[in-house]
Amino acid sequence: MTVVQENKSHESVQESLQHVQALLHKQQIVESLVHKQEMPKHDLVQSLVHKQHLAELQKLLDTLHPADVAYILEALPLDQRLLVWDLVKAERDGEILLEASDAVRESLIKSMDSEELLAAAETLDTDEIADLAPDLPRDVIEELLQTLDAQNRARLQSAMSYEEDTVGGLMDYDMVSVREDVTLEVALLYLRHLGELPNQTDKLFVVDSQDHLKGVLPLKRMLTLDPGTIIRDVMVEDVVVFHPQDEGRTAAQAFERYDLVTAPVVDGNSRLIGRLAIDVVMDYVREESEAEKLGLAGLREEEDLFASVWKSVQNRWAWLAVNLITALIASRVIGLFEGSIQKLVALAALMPIVAGIGGNSGNQTTTMIVRALALGQLRASGMRKLLRKELGVAGLNGLLWGSVMGVIAYLLYKNIYLGLVITGAMTLNLMLAAVMGVLIPLAMMKLGRDPAVGSSVMITAITDSGGFFIFLGLATLFLL
Amino acid sequence: MTVVQENKSHESVQESLQHVQALLHKQQIVESLVHKQEMPKHDLVQSLVHKQHLAELQKLLDTLHPADVAYILEALPLDQRLLVWDLVKAERDGEILLEASDAVRESLIKSMDSEELLAAAETLDTDEIADLAPDLPRDVIEELLQTLDAQNRARLQSAMSYEEDTVGGLMDYDMVSVREDVTLEVALLYLRHLGELPNQTDKLFVVDSQDHLKGVLPLKRMLTLDPGTIIRDVMVEDVVVFHPQDEGRTAAQAFERYDLVTAPVVDGNSRLIGRLAIDVVMDYVREESEAEKLGLAGLREEEDLFASVWKSVQNRWAWLAVNLITALIASRVIGLFEGSIQKLVALAALMPIVAGIGGNSGNQTTTMIVRALALGQLRASGMRKLLRKELGVAGLNGLLWGSVMGVIAYLLYKNIYLGLVITGAMTLNLMLAAVMGVLIPLAMMKLGRDPAVGSSVMITAITDSGGFFIFLGLATLFLL
Repeated sequence: MTVVQENKSHESVQESLQHVQALLHKQQIVESLVHKQEMPKHDLVQSLVHKQHLAELQKLLDTLHPADVAYILEALPLDQRLLVWDLVKAERDGEILLEASDAVRESLIKSMDSEELLAAAETLDTDEIADLAPDLPRDVIEELLQTLDAQNRARLQSAMSYEEDTVGGLMDYDMVSVREDVTLEVALLYLRHLGELPNQTDKLFVVDSQDHLKGVLPLKRMLTLDPGTIIRDVMVEDVVVFHPQDEGRTAAQAFERYDLVTAPVVDGNSRLIGRLAIDVVMDYVREESEAEKLGLAGLREEEDLFASVWKSVQNRWAWLAVNLITALIASRVIGLFEGSIQKLVALAALMPIVAGIGGNSGNQTTTMIVRALALGQLRASGMRKLLRKELGVAGLNGLLWGSVMGVIAYLLYKNIYLGLVITGAMTLNLMLAAVMGVLIPLAMMKLGRDPAVGSSVMITAITDSGGFFIFLGLATLFLL
Repeated sequence: MTVVQENKSHESVQESLQHVQALLHKQQIVESLVHKQEMPKHDLVQSLVHKQHLAELQKLLDTLHPADVAYILEALPLDQRLLVWDLVKAERDGEILLEASDAVRESLIKSMDSEELLAAAETLDTDEIADLAPDLPRDVIEELLQTLDAQNRARLQSAMSYEEDTVGGLMDYDMVSVREDVTLEVALLYLRHLGELPNQTDKLFVVDSQDHLKGVLPLKRMLTLDPGTIIRDVMVEDVVVFHPQDEGRTAAQAFERYDLVTAPVVDGNSRLIGRLAIDVVMDYVREESEAEKLGLAGLREEEDLFASVWKSVQNRWAWLAVNLITALIASRVIGLFEGSIQKLVALAALMPIVAGIGGNSGNQTTTMIVRALALGQLRASGMRKLLRKELGVAGLNGLLWGSVMGVIAYLLYKNIYLGLVITGAMTLNLMLAAVMGVLIPLAMMKLGRDPAVGSSVMITAITDSGGFFIFLGLATLFLL
């Protein structure tokens, strides 16, 4: 990707990052020389060089898109990040904070006083302020509310009341609406009078005198149809609309499925109250998918790459604690069979294989089910069919890999019965994994919990303990 | 989300799915009765009822958006899916195939003969045909190429030559371009003459007589500015442009960062050759994130929920094989210490805890690093800092949870040295996990491989074998 500016390509954001890092590096050398007092006599030159780098840096930052500045801030260690942040023009603070990731935004806000925060927030729209609100100190929000006019104050308060991952939390107030009984020409004059249209605008919302949504008028139609046409005759009445309490996930799926750019948000009386736009939806999709990936590894939240050790420990310890508990349970299962292990120590070496393969297979099943559940494509009626299929897959894989392991175990320990036991144990544990891989996400769904979070730990816990129990149990029954 | 149609809400896609399933269910009952010959005398009534359900189903399908039909097809078992597919109007086949997931698309295409496929493809744009091409039989493609005019044939051939995940593979040819030396009014007349604009169009591309890109003209400006203005004076020259060989991932990041709706694609001579639009980019983002999730669980590709057992086994066996091999290596590490385990069987029960916690912690580190690498935010200079931080986090977590486990081991086995050994082993294994969690993704990156795929298996392999070795090794040294 290149950005063409007056027909000359200029640097991509990765190149800008390297540029910033190079300038910071130069500046660091200067500072460390000053610090070591190796150039005590050149103080003046020093500080000039120093200032020159910072000025160059500032100039570079001014040319960058707010999202690019946010990207660069995220990639820098805390000390350099705050230095760069100080160089950013105050009036751009707001939009850059909006673009930064949660963890980095927090570190930036912490470095600002109430006055700076207030000034930054004042450059933003009410829906954008609402996005920042959870990170702002209470007194700043109070003061902000004072400065707004009645309409915007009401909007900010209602925007802050919506959950972050609902349509209400994602929508903005940048809607342009027209009445259905006027001509396109009148609408065109109105737009020309406005002088500018909000970003992403691809359609106008058609409303009646009470702001009830009647349809939408795509800009395309305004451009291609005869200006004398009455809007009612050319507006689209088959409209995808959202309500503020709709889930963000549902809205994202609709945007994807119907290729929307913007969509109206209405209240219970189908009165137009806001607009949902593709840029916000896309950010939401990305954040959700990031959060899910982090969640799978048990990171409670997005972690600043350069967070303090202590903060990172806090972000991660809960997951380790949960896994320690499940490991401890599995350990006690093994403890039940210590007598058997003492008699046949090969069991100790082979048992992690049975447990591990069950966890892998169970997670494959769960991943499939979680995906189908997220899309709403799985219903109770399809369940039995699916369970049968997964049991078939697990049984086949179990016999296949169980037999391979059986042969290996026989070759290693010259004990044909040990080989048969591990084959049987692996098959049974894979089938246990299949059943649990289907049932656990479904059960979590029924209990109203997100099956994407936690299913994996539970599967692994069961296939670990179950695998040890099945293998050591079979061995105790048949080998000793 | 609701769809408002002439001011009456109609059903959401999930409701449509349930509706379809109910109709299929009714029809199934009828069929099974016919099959059991329990109503032999009512044959006529029978077939009427039967036909009635199918007619109702067909009517329902006709009202649905192609994406919704695809969604419903994905949610149905194969026999029902093909029955519904037969009811879909032939002229909609193409767009529905485009919307379906790879696995389901394949199952649908398999049920069609060359003639049907050709008819379906002919309803599509060249860039869309190129998307289907990998799944189409060679003879259908040959015949398709015959039917196209020279420009479209050349486009289809070049579209098929691009990798699926490059801008070339994602772009379409729906660009509307204007010359820079005409007025807005002329451009408006041109649009009115065209009569219709491609979906997602938010800007026109401004070119010279040789099709060199000069800038873009947002529709917003056409609507709000004086029609007498020369385009050159109001076009935007600071444009994000792409080249066909750019990675899809880079393009997606740019769309997200700069809130783009469409962007021009140019060749090496900055000649306009195509257009990239947000709907395709958003589908791409979703597919990438799905593929990554599936990859983490070792599913080679998106699996049709109702794929045959045999197909599913093929999709999953490779992952199980890889994990079996790493488990086998870990098993051999344990085998080295069979003598120690025989002397102190508690080691067998405790060793999975040391291994497991290392894997969990290592995966947390890797998840962070992979994310930073994907964003291009991690450079060699930041590496040492990061490694130090991760070692600190691992050391702290190791001492914390190692001590907890040490106390538990002491309480269980009344052996204080055993408690100390497990504390030490857990700390060391967590630190091993931290180092590997940073180095493995970086090494994979350097070797030109995708660090998101495979890092996790390698970490787990190392922390398993490493954990067993450290714990059993320390125990052999200090306890026996």
